[in-house]
Amino acid sequence: MTQLAVDATPGLATFMTDMEEHLTRATARRPGRAASVAAAALTAGGKRLRPRLCFLASPGAGSPPPLAAGVAVELIHMATLVHDDLVDGARMRRGAPAAWSVYGPDAALSAGDYLFACAFAELAETGDSAAVSTLADACLALARGEAMQRTQTHDPETTIDAYLERCALKTGKLFEAACLLGSGGDASLGEFGLSLGIAFQIADDILDCAGQTQETGKIPGTDLREGTPTMPLLLAAQEDEVVRAALAGGPLDGALIRVGATDAIARSRDAAVEYASRARSFLGEHPHREELDWLTHAVVDRAS
Amino acid sequence: MTQLAVDATPGLATFMTDMEEHLTRATARRPGRAASVAAAALTAGGKRLRPRLCFLASPGAGSPPPLAAGVAVELIHMATLVHDDLVDGARMRRGAPAAWSVYGPDAALSAGDYLFACAFAELAETGDSAAVSTLADACLALARGEAMQRTQTHDPETTIDAYLERCALKTGKLFEAACLLGSGGDASLGEFGLSLGIAFQIADDILDCAGQTQETGKIPGTDLREGTPTMPLLLAAQEDEVVRAALAGGPLDGALIRVGATDAIARSRDAAVEYASRARSFLGEHPHREELDWLTHAVVDRAS
Repeated sequence: MTQLAVDATPGLATFMTDMEEHLTRATARRPGRAASVAAAALTAGGKRLRPRLCFLASPGAGSPPPLAAGVAVELIHMATLVHDDLVDGARMRRGAPAAWSVYGPDAALSAGDYLFACAFAELAETGDSAAVSTLADACLALARGEAMQRTQTHDPETTIDAYLERCALKTGKLFEAACLLGSGGDASLGEFGLSLGIAFQIADDILDCAGQTQETGKIPGTDLREGTPTMPLLLAAQEDEVVRAALAGGPLDGALIRVGATDAIARSRDAAVEYASRARSFLGEHPHREELDWLTHAVVDRAS
Repeated sequence: MTQLAVDATPGLATFMTDMEEHLTRATARRPGRAASVAAAALTAGGKRLRPRLCFLASPGAGSPPPLAAGVAVELIHMATLVHDDLVDGARMRRGAPAAWSVYGPDAALSAGDYLFACAFAELAETGDSAAVSTLADACLALARGEAMQRTQTHDPETTIDAYLERCALKTGKLFEAACLLGSGGDASLGEFGLSLGIAFQIADDILDCAGQTQETGKIPGTDLREGTPTMPLLLAAQEDEVVRAALAGGPLDGALIRVGATDAIARSRDAAVEYASRARSFLGEHPHREELDWLTHAVVDRAS
């Protein structure tokens, strides 16, 4: 979704090509099984949204962010996907088998650890300790978000606030880090990224309910099947006992269709729009202001 | 084993007390389930050998290494233990239940990720990018070593060289990092740490065969049961078909006793002694030369 309108930004295409090469070199820096599994996970693709965001947050065409920054955020994102699939027992990722289902749980665990270490190795080489702190902070958030998701699983009593906190931890903080690393630590752009990430996650969760494939290539309806309480599911569960029971781990029959019959999706979309608008409020003068503004609409429009 | 003779070193006791407090604060920096599981893993104890090494490698009483360095190496060590237990399905750790068996595999995975991130967050705060690079390098090695162990499992054809490479990756590189961080990047002390770590690992693997509990609190005989090809098991397998078959995944009956009947343990001890001696060869003039020298004997003496 993001490529078409934003990819014409001067310098972005070159940055992304260089970033992709750098990404390949980064995972290959220490050969072995962990590197092979990590490389396979990377070549499975993805939109590289976080490196793009990193570039767009940079002060302008004359001074792109270091490639290492874009590479690092993407490596962390891949590490979490590899570990998440392992814990979720998710066999597919972007239409291809997940790393653990091909190479085994042990290989997936070490490949994820390897990807984490690669990210820090790349960023540390820039000599920018503040950047490393930013990345570590995002990783702490990701781990907390992952742990939080487990405690919320099959719990229809999860509050919307707790759900939003999870979105901030699991998605928002790495978007924030991408913007901070790209901009050289601009706090407003960090806030922009955090809100954009939450909007993005809500939209992704709507797509799951609406039966569409999300950015991560997840099979639609996964959240309900796995008992992950997302905003549309939680709001629908407040109105519909069948949805509520399904979310709690009961029978799924027809529950997803019943979600569509409530106003849960519309209300969730409103929330996503609100976070996108909040993200825009942090945009001051910026050479890529137009592109960043466009992104806030694009992440939400996916779910319309 | 290391506490008694080395703990009289001026400044070490204070460093270790401060390190322990810092360690508790570090894991608590972001509250939640990941932090709780991580804290439980830390309080389960351990010898804190790596932070001790970090202190001893420092230039002397007047300039101890930053606490963050000792904390970071211990956090990485704990992260790998938590993840290793998860992959190994090891239910016990130092006589207490492993994190995953108490809190579940998902919580253990995120707690390990959290501990990794804590380590980088701590070290990045010192503003020392070279130190962060050193730690990232050790983490890459750990992940590779873990992946390598899986490919070697149940393979009695594993070469001694491949085994030694695994020891370097899984143990040596973090010992090396502890020495590099403690000494402010002294390459000789790094080499000292690497060889010491390999000697330490060989000794640990001997203890497993000899029916004694190792530093990690592993139940004796674990390596043979899990098919992990260690030096004593590989050497014994070259001489004894029953051991060879057991290592390959066959029946275990009496195999461990047969290992003791070969010269595999003596030959492995010789190798550990050789690595300890190699470690000493890297020791030049150093305020803690005596203590570091003592350590090279102590790690091997455990297995005598």
